[in-house]
Amino acid sequence: MGARLLDGLAVAATIRESVMPRVQAFTARAGRPPGLGIVLVGDNPASELYVSSKVKAGGESGLRVDLQRLPATATLDELLRLVDALNRSDQHDGILVQDPLPEAMGKGASQRVFDAIDPAKDVDGFHPINVGKLVQQRAHLVACTPSGVIEMLDRSGIAIEGRRAVVIGRSDIVGKPMAMLLLHRSATVTICHSKTRDLAALAAEADILVAALGRPGFVTRTFVKPGATVIDVGINRVTDEALARSLLAGSPRLAVFERRRSIVVGDVHPEVAEIAGALTPVPGGVGPLTIAMLLKNTVTAAEARKSGK
Amino acid sequence: MGARLLDGLAVAATIRESVMPRVQAFTARAGRPPGLGIVLVGDNPASELYVSSKVKAGGESGLRVDLQRLPATATLDELLRLVDALNRSDQHDGILVQDPLPEAMGKGASQRVFDAIDPAKDVDGFHPINVGKLVQQRAHLVACTPSGVIEMLDRSGIAIEGRRAVVIGRSDIVGKPMAMLLLHRSATVTICHSKTRDLAALAAEADILVAALGRPGFVTRTFVKPGATVIDVGINRVTDEALARSLLAGSPRLAVFERRRSIVVGDVHPEVAEIAGALTPVPGGVGPLTIAMLLKNTVTAAEARKSGK
Repeated sequence: MGARLLDGLAVAATIRESVMPRVQAFTARAGRPPGLGIVLVGDNPASELYVSSKVKAGGESGLRVDLQRLPATATLDELLRLVDALNRSDQHDGILVQDPLPEAMGKGASQRVFDAIDPAKDVDGFHPINVGKLVQQRAHLVACTPSGVIEMLDRSGIAIEGRRAVVIGRSDIVGKPMAMLLLHRSATVTICHSKTRDLAALAAEADILVAALGRPGFVTRTFVKPGATVIDVGINRVTDEALARSLLAGSPRLAVFERRRSIVVGDVHPEVAEIAGALTPVPGGVGPLTIAMLLKNTVTAAEARKSGK
Repeated sequence: MGARLLDGLAVAATIRESVMPRVQAFTARAGRPPGLGIVLVGDNPASELYVSSKVKAGGESGLRVDLQRLPATATLDELLRLVDALNRSDQHDGILVQDPLPEAMGKGASQRVFDAIDPAKDVDGFHPINVGKLVQQRAHLVACTPSGVIEMLDRSGIAIEGRRAVVIGRSDIVGKPMAMLLLHRSATVTICHSKTRDLAALAAEADILVAALGRPGFVTRTFVKPGATVIDVGINRVTDEALARSLLAGSPRLAVFERRRSIVVGDVHPEVAEIAGALTPVPGGVGPLTIAMLLKNTVTAAEARKSGK
């Protein structure tokens, strides 16, 4: 167990503390707190959990957070009308529509909803104009998970410039923006995915390895250069007993699995802790940072709207 | 001289031929040809040359191309007014403002102008919303040079999926969109730049190496894996005699330099031809493709505007 554990909860607390004076100053100036509107459609249990964490964290930081629910049977038009109302609301500076949407809404529904959110309130950074500005290195609002990873690296004293970074996963919400952010900090960035050949060998060239592919325990020790920093973005719920036993062998979390028959694990196999220089745990690594960055983005959006930027 | 030369002029001619029936169909349906408005500010000789090539190629393909000039002393406001007029014009489906702008317009001037172009007419693909849609793999209008490179690879029978691609250069107009396009075709993509360590060794891992850094002859044989495909995006004007002699040794182009005291060379050293499997020459490689893709984008924009997409 050589790897230093990067404590996402502690870093997230620091970020949230740094946001507090901005919340207070905004509230004093505007006569209202920064406001975040969250929309949850249906009752996906994972989404319920994420949303309740966001509502709680927002409240603790002095934001106004309004959770609006739609039933799983809601139509895309109903959802778009709700987004439109939040776009027009003076009280809401940020809008977050929790993904995934019910499948019945159709395949392109999420992107249609993200496209409909006022870019100035797009605290998830999913609107194409904010994605484009990220590429052009001038975004105010950047996707929360990858920007949280950068904060984690910075606040943990891990240098980025000139380092080899490998991102496994090419999703719009993590892999691609992560690659862009690392590139803008002058890492040499490689993006890998399901079609990558010799993935383990390539990953093992990385000084900073970001696993964001969504496969439990996929990144084993052969993927990791000794001493590398490994960032585990995976949040995978495991109910298969054999898999849980293999991933949690020797961990007190195995008892949790045995009680609940279900547990959340990352994309990185626990054995990586023996070889990595630094590692984010799951849970308690990247997850809390995502929420902290959401609060930060909401305050940024509020300030920018107020100053007419 | 082992490398197969990838003939950009021939591929560009094929693309332009494939565009012709679309131009004719549009013209018949709309009662006017697809229209491209080009704005040239000042009299930069390289820009004059690029613009005249674009005007000529557009005319040959049956487009209407209007070149509008502003003096080097024009203000940013004058330029923005001209862009606004082109945005409103029913006759113009595409708008291209030739970069670079005079320095007197200020540092962010180009991006302010690109931001002002109607995204539906943004045939250069530089508007942030089109950049964002490129990242999200749903852009109609993609930057011409990188999309031309993809066409070149496809039409030359060079496989992309699963291959290692290395892009040297991280500009908004070539390096980053090039990386995205290669990624979307399932290459494993690495983006290198001035802060990259061991650049030559890393480049030599590439099956497809794209040089887009703007330094004459920078990519030498040590950068190239034997048999790799090397795409030279560089267009560098060389007036230094020693440099010209070293880059053009044994080439009939040396006589051209001696007559004109100036010559255009790529980022790839000629010695790479001895080791690469395929190579784009400069001139006659990527350059003509950029122009062909501009025509294609103009027709695409015209069709989309007409169909109300």
